[in-house]
Amino acid sequence: MSLKRYLIGKPLANERLDHERLNKRTALAVLSSDAISSVAYATDQILFVLGGAIGVAGLQYVFPISAVIVGLLVLVGISYQQTIHAYPGGGGSYTVAKENLGQRAGLIAAAALLTDYILTVAVSVSGGVAAITSAYPSLVPHTVAIGIGAIMLLMVVNLRGVREAGIAFSIPTYAFIAMMLVLIGMGLWKLRNGVTPIEVVAPLGVDKTTVQHGGSFPAGYALLFLLLRGFAEGCAAMTGTEAISNGVQAFKAPTQRNAAVTLSWMVAILATFFLGVSYMAHQYAVMPTTAETVLSQLGHHVFGTGLAYYALQYSTFAILVLAANTAFADFPRLAGILANDKFMPSQLAARGDRLAFSNGIISLALIAMLLVWLFKGDTNALIPLYAIGVFVCFTLSQAGMVMHWLRSRERGWRWRAALNGVGALATGVVSVIQIVTKFTEGAWIVALIIPLFIVILQSIQTHYRRFAIDIAFRGRSPILPHAHTVVVPISAVNKATAAALVYATTLSRNVRAIHIEVDAKATPKLEREWDRWDIGYELETLASPYRSIVAPLVEYVRTIQAETPGALVTVVTPELVPRHWWEYLLHNKTALYIRTAFLFKPNVVVVAVPYLLGHDYEHEERGPRWTAEASVITGETRR
Amino acid sequence: MSLKRYLIGKPLANERLDHERLNKRTALAVLSSDAISSVAYATDQILFVLGGAIGVAGLQYVFPISAVIVGLLVLVGISYQQTIHAYPGGGGSYTVAKENLGQRAGLIAAAALLTDYILTVAVSVSGGVAAITSAYPSLVPHTVAIGIGAIMLLMVVNLRGVREAGIAFSIPTYAFIAMMLVLIGMGLWKLRNGVTPIEVVAPLGVDKTTVQHGGSFPAGYALLFLLLRGFAEGCAAMTGTEAISNGVQAFKAPTQRNAAVTLSWMVAILATFFLGVSYMAHQYAVMPTTAETVLSQLGHHVFGTGLAYYALQYSTFAILVLAANTAFADFPRLAGILANDKFMPSQLAARGDRLAFSNGIISLALIAMLLVWLFKGDTNALIPLYAIGVFVCFTLSQAGMVMHWLRSRERGWRWRAALNGVGALATGVVSVIQIVTKFTEGAWIVALIIPLFIVILQSIQTHYRRFAIDIAFRGRSPILPHAHTVVVPISAVNKATAAALVYATTLSRNVRAIHIEVDAKATPKLEREWDRWDIGYELETLASPYRSIVAPLVEYVRTIQAETPGALVTVVTPELVPRHWWEYLLHNKTALYIRTAFLFKPNVVVVAVPYLLGHDYEHEERGPRWTAEASVITGETRR
Repeated sequence: MSLKRYLIGKPLANERLDHERLNKRTALAVLSSDAISSVAYATDQILFVLGGAIGVAGLQYVFPISAVIVGLLVLVGISYQQTIHAYPGGGGSYTVAKENLGQRAGLIAAAALLTDYILTVAVSVSGGVAAITSAYPSLVPHTVAIGIGAIMLLMVVNLRGVREAGIAFSIPTYAFIAMMLVLIGMGLWKLRNGVTPIEVVAPLGVDKTTVQHGGSFPAGYALLFLLLRGFAEGCAAMTGTEAISNGVQAFKAPTQRNAAVTLSWMVAILATFFLGVSYMAHQYAVMPTTAETVLSQLGHHVFGTGLAYYALQYSTFAILVLAANTAFADFPRLAGILANDKFMPSQLAARGDRLAFSNGIISLALIAMLLVWLFKGDTNALIPLYAIGVFVCFTLSQAGMVMHWLRSRERGWRWRAALNGVGALATGVVSVIQIVTKFTEGAWIVALIIPLFIVILQSIQTHYRRFAIDIAFRGRSPILPHAHTVVVPISAVNKATAAALVYATTLSRNVRAIHIEVDAKATPKLEREWDRWDIGYELETLASPYRSIVAPLVEYVRTIQAETPGALVTVVTPELVPRHWWEYLLHNKTALYIRTAFLFKPNVVVVAVPYLLGHDYEHEERGPRWTAEASVITGETRR
Repeated sequence: MSLKRYLIGKPLANERLDHERLNKRTALAVLSSDAISSVAYATDQILFVLGGAIGVAGLQYVFPISAVIVGLLVLVGISYQQTIHAYPGGGGSYTVAKENLGQRAGLIAAAALLTDYILTVAVSVSGGVAAITSAYPSLVPHTVAIGIGAIMLLMVVNLRGVREAGIAFSIPTYAFIAMMLVLIGMGLWKLRNGVTPIEVVAPLGVDKTTVQHGGSFPAGYALLFLLLRGFAEGCAAMTGTEAISNGVQAFKAPTQRNAAVTLSWMVAILATFFLGVSYMAHQYAVMPTTAETVLSQLGHHVFGTGLAYYALQYSTFAILVLAANTAFADFPRLAGILANDKFMPSQLAARGDRLAFSNGIISLALIAMLLVWLFKGDTNALIPLYAIGVFVCFTLSQAGMVMHWLRSRERGWRWRAALNGVGALATGVVSVIQIVTKFTEGAWIVALIIPLFIVILQSIQTHYRRFAIDIAFRGRSPILPHAHTVVVPISAVNKATAAALVYATTLSRNVRAIHIEVDAKATPKLEREWDRWDIGYELETLASPYRSIVAPLVEYVRTIQAETPGALVTVVTPELVPRHWWEYLLHNKTALYIRTAFLFKPNVVVVAVPYLLGHDYEHEERGPRWTAEASVITGETRR
């Protein structure tokens, strides 16, 4: 508990939940880290696909493919400008799809988004770790440990409740933007001034003979499929594009205008960086390896091994961790919305001590850590799973916008619908390309997980719906049970059983003290003590040939219920509460077993009366003084 | 549960606990497997020590050392004959030491015995696995898995409650005895007829130059220490000697005479086998390796690779597993005795479904598996820990017998006391030799664990003693609490809260319905529903700025207790009981949190009123019908 306080901090009151509004510069830093940071791995993915099949010859295709992706990016960007216009409160894919296309489409969007957020964490953290291990190759064996450590750090920070503090978020984003501008600027200058790369790094997993002799160079459909697969992998560059249209309400007034301008900036920056990196990768003939990223190799070519190179790597790591952090804000928020719509467990809608959706944050961290561990922290292994969810969401969201304009018919609805329609069509086609070309590389996992998520969300809602009907109280008053029998199992005469018996006496006139005979040799002593005690009840003895406490008790209660239909039965047991945890090991868990045994039996309530070992009941001012001299409990002393 | 039934079987009634009496032949099989099976590893241990230091030259000392051990064995055997005479009901070391030397000596004996039993399982099972892996070297990598599997099998068999079935126990023991007789007989015959061994197997870990050139052959004290260490390790042959005197009551009449005769047989068999194996090991110049035992190598020399060799190995495995099984009978029995004396948790004294001491059996199995895993199933690594506990028990038990004779002064007390005294002295000296010579090899672990056990046993007794004083009820009647307030936290108006409120009404006139306001937006709706319900209680709203259900409730109860000293407070919460386990994940654990929060607060009882989801309360004949039309609960309708 004190460790928790130290890590998470003191609880925060509800009033602290109001929002801070962001100006454009800060909003760009906060909302676009996910999108911009994609350049740290997107070009690598295209080259991995091409290099793996046709070696260095693949370099010729990297720029054209990147250009196509940037075209798609601009299209999607324009399309999301319409969403900003229509949803000033923030138009997440789930909301837009549900409102315009119905609940089923909303569910698909929700499932796709959830997988997308999980993969954002796993991919971004793995990419960040790759930036570090590229700079320090000796850290490669610790890839998984560093990744899991980074996710745990993000979890703790988010459980503390990150106020989206402008400066803390601006530094990594703008540092990365600055380093990228320097890299691209210096790189292009060097290329113009005739600096040529020193060596061609052989890509991993490439059959060298194929590369050198141009042996089985693919043609026709095989080449088309290869290029499409490279395109599909490169589309990872587009993840995060929707962030600004989701977070419109975070902007200062004029809200929508500011959001629209920031979105344009973001698209421009991302497009420039992505094209720049892809162009330079071609010119410097850079091939990524599992040990070193494209960006790191370009950094070496342009900056050598000086300070500027390390600044590039650290800023890459920082912006990628920030990108993972956006998922830590988005996943729990979506889970909370889904919980309010009864598609997810209600616990996910509860804010924790620090006003964060704690359960959602912890769930996300655990799943992402599992993924990093399973995929050994390898970005390239995770990427084929990524982007599919994103494109499904793009498609649903924009298709939803088409419906929105067709219905609203507000000014400009025709061209807005047309724009969104083209966007939906394009991203829809890309979704199909994603699934088909990457299917055997891991896309099948996502093709399984998204429907599975949908089934789970659906059955959770079914449960809550049935539950609501089951438990609904239809305005009429309940009646009291007409008979109430209280059963007190007695194993010994002591203060704990006395407390239980006194408590039982306050519940009903009909108290039955019973002794479950596990060891026949102990019975006479107990009966003597009971008679000496003279509490006013008979002690019934139940045989227990199989030495179980619970079974004869359950049978006894069943008999009472059979004799008196409509009877409520309460079983009162003493519960010893020791001072130290290890002392728990020294006492039977009878109270717990009894509670468990009756949990599924209707009209039976189990009451455990705690007796605190070492507590000075006798000298306590308030509370029953169990050993005080007093008359025998009879009908008169009872209430 | 059904898996448990399948593995363990149906519960057995108490009457099945009567004892089966054994004749001498069966008793020998049941009670001496532990002792006789020691020949499977004892000679190996002497040779490991000698071979490790002086190589093949060590072979010359193996027979003399074995002869000294056999001398000690005979002495201890005669000494235990006196115990049989004095304790016809069975004289375990704990009983004898406690009765004659006091509780502290009893505790030391108990701690030594417990470690001894644990090590018996670990060593015997490892030795048995070594017999198998000697025959099938390809199984060596699976040593730990086979060992743990064997222990799990023993656990299940013992949880079923092994009736000490004569035949099942006789077959392995007599098969082993037969194979050993054949081995020794044929071996000696072959030696006499001039068959000499083919090769000298180089012992593991031996510096070959030392062996061949006799380089630094130890002399004086160094040689003495070496021989003493060999002797100490070889004493593992004597483990299990006490079994017959412990189990006198299992014999048919004339009980004591039969036990005495059987003990003599056992000592004779063990002495013959041990001397035979050690003699032949010398003659055949056999050195054990970690891959092959002495017995297996002798088997190869005498039988070749035929059927007889495999029969020897399998019977060795079988008798060693049987030896481990005796610890599964003895450990839980001793733990039960200690639990009755309040030195161990009372759960260890409870017999399970099948009349076995289930908790003791499971504890023993878990610890033994841990040991096998930690020591990688290597008998030779475990042996230095073994025999120490045994010799401490020998010493205490015989010293106790000396006191017994000095006190009883019955016929022949002088020479009996003298015999036991010589035995105690000899085993006492050996105990010291054990600890000193093997200290660095692992004896330090036992020298730590035995005192640790004593401290644990002692503090458990202290706890139970304090507990008994704390909880003792001194014959006077308890008084009723003079005020009883019932608090019902209400989060919604539904059947579950209605059930809780109805139950609260039966407890006291003073019921307080409270609403803990986690989300202010939900309050008006709840208040409207509450007013419409018109149950006759006010609904108080408690603020919860930090969104905790528990904290404001605890504070509220504290206030009630401060206002009304001596008040008993009951908190009644509804508890939803879903039909399927996964549905538990979909509901808050509020009832559990509330119970936990109040567990350590005196004079507060928490009652969870279960509401079974999906149960048809309305059409149930017995039990309250929560939705029936009825008048509002008022003072009149209350009891």
